[in-house]
Amino acid sequence: MRHFTFVSAFASALVMAAAPAVAAEPIALRDMGSFHIGGRIAEVSGKEVRMIVRQPGGPQTKYDPNGQFMVEQMYVQYFLPQNRKGKVPLLMWHGGGLTGVTYETTPDGREGWLNMFVRKGWDTYVSDAVERGRSGFASPDVWPSEPTFLNYQDPYERFRIGQGEGSWNADPQKRKPIPGTQFPVEAYENYMKQSVPRWLSTDDAIIAGYVALVDKICPCVVLMHSQGGAFGFKVAEKRPDKFKAIVAIESATAGIVANAAKLKDVPVLMVFGDHVDEHPRWAAFKKIDLAYGDAVRAAGGKVDVVHLPEVGIKGNSHMMMQDKNNGEIADVIQKWLADNKLND
Amino acid sequence: MRHFTFVSAFASALVMAAAPAVAAEPIALRDMGSFHIGGRIAEVSGKEVRMIVRQPGGPQTKYDPNGQFMVEQMYVQYFLPQNRKGKVPLLMWHGGGLTGVTYETTPDGREGWLNMFVRKGWDTYVSDAVERGRSGFASPDVWPSEPTFLNYQDPYERFRIGQGEGSWNADPQKRKPIPGTQFPVEAYENYMKQSVPRWLSTDDAIIAGYVALVDKICPCVVLMHSQGGAFGFKVAEKRPDKFKAIVAIESATAGIVANAAKLKDVPVLMVFGDHVDEHPRWAAFKKIDLAYGDAVRAAGGKVDVVHLPEVGIKGNSHMMMQDKNNGEIADVIQKWLADNKLND
Repeated sequence: MRHFTFVSAFASALVMAAAPAVAAEPIALRDMGSFHIGGRIAEVSGKEVRMIVRQPGGPQTKYDPNGQFMVEQMYVQYFLPQNRKGKVPLLMWHGGGLTGVTYETTPDGREGWLNMFVRKGWDTYVSDAVERGRSGFASPDVWPSEPTFLNYQDPYERFRIGQGEGSWNADPQKRKPIPGTQFPVEAYENYMKQSVPRWLSTDDAIIAGYVALVDKICPCVVLMHSQGGAFGFKVAEKRPDKFKAIVAIESATAGIVANAAKLKDVPVLMVFGDHVDEHPRWAAFKKIDLAYGDAVRAAGGKVDVVHLPEVGIKGNSHMMMQDKNNGEIADVIQKWLADNKLND
Repeated sequence: MRHFTFVSAFASALVMAAAPAVAAEPIALRDMGSFHIGGRIAEVSGKEVRMIVRQPGGPQTKYDPNGQFMVEQMYVQYFLPQNRKGKVPLLMWHGGGLTGVTYETTPDGREGWLNMFVRKGWDTYVSDAVERGRSGFASPDVWPSEPTFLNYQDPYERFRIGQGEGSWNADPQKRKPIPGTQFPVEAYENYMKQSVPRWLSTDDAIIAGYVALVDKICPCVVLMHSQGGAFGFKVAEKRPDKFKAIVAIESATAGIVANAAKLKDVPVLMVFGDHVDEHPRWAAFKKIDLAYGDAVRAAGGKVDVVHLPEVGIKGNSHMMMQDKNNGEIADVIQKWLADNKLND
């Protein structure tokens, strides 16, 4: 069964649209800024006051972990182009163990999708999920689980940069990248610098943060990546009237199938990179995504799916917004948004 | 002893320069983007592989804390105005328990110094110190200390927003702000959302990150706030040729007096807000800063000190870049930079 619901005319248009992005034009903004949204005041009491050393070599001083703490707020930065063309704002939600930096830059220092979509005229909002980056995180007295840390080789083997398990080597010369990969493997170290720890008990708080953002900014288009899709579809099910479209980049996983009908009026674009079927983990996520898409369609919704290799765009990793052809993929998304009348 | 080294002509010019910032002009950028710099690969070995639950309600799965980890990198975001006037880049370093967000916005949603200085024509780089915000943080297996968390009332009483200890109350109506404060007390909650945890054993890593940034971007002007000054002066002592000027906003503390001569060719502006002498903590920091300034001067350097109330700017808290008259203070700094021939 193929889930490629829009046919060859659209596919050809995609390929034509896929010209390299033109760089170096100035960016003119009506405004830029940031804010935090959501959050709550947590009370901590009954914890032992203990002595800590606040400066290396300094004296022991009292540290009281009790009191009120501001927790679970979410950081959002926005860029509003002077030549606005998007009919609604565009929100960009990152994946697991990452922050909004995903969209700002690439490991080899090219422009990210933030700049590209601002240039295309979108009011663009990039956030850090609750618990990550500039959103801050709560103490162990508030969150029961501990943070987990991704080791240096994990994404190389798991995000379809290298040829799966065993493709990593501490010596860059001995690594085995996927032949023809679009990921800037020479700058893998810079990619890993973008990585941040993640907790395992904060899903509800993350979703609450996104709901607060949607309530403030939307109606809008939400572009979501990887774990951001797992959150994003659930947020969309809670606020379907606020979503004018969803762009899901290798969402892992999707929403709740029993709720899929709530998205019947929200056009969805799912984008998958290359070599997905050769990697059990991504094949499994894709299957979940497509099943959810089928459920949305069965309720009368519109779900378009682009498997990039099938439209002639090859070699893309899970981090396609940072791949060398990220401009080409941005153009595919832009074309779809325009076809859905979301862009002037 | 007064440390007000530039005299009334300059002081009058300051007051004249202190017009409210004009908002709503578009911002035209040659480029914007971000990168991470510095960092190292840490090896963790011999730690127990343990079982964790990765999704609430999910199965126990293996978590291996061993391996290589990318740690101690620093996040930097930059905005390069089309109409560049600053002769060198301007770097903005935040204070303790905070991130670069300090400069992006104010709790009540006005423009921060980032926008203001970009509008004034400065290539502006805002970073998150190592360990904070989008710089990520390392596991307890790499950093021996634990993060500490600032409670909700602490900055209210400590940052000269409220009238010192005992001025806080959970009921906003019962709080005791300093009369005439410029801090947007009605939006205190939003200020606390900007707060992030801090570690107590990472000073060397933080300084190493800043040195890496300076080596990449400078010569430049560095504007540093609070704890950022304690780091910033030490970085300047290591790379005096890279610093064209220092703007220290209530630095806490300063550099190492024995090294102060290294800054003899770096003009320094120290800025202090209101009510500093009434608060023992800030009076003590000011004393340390001024003593350091004296040592720089004794070596032939130039250190200008502005006590804002003495030039007619009253009511400023420790977070003066977010106070209601933040534009007025930005103009004071801009005037000084222009007087030092750093602005066309």
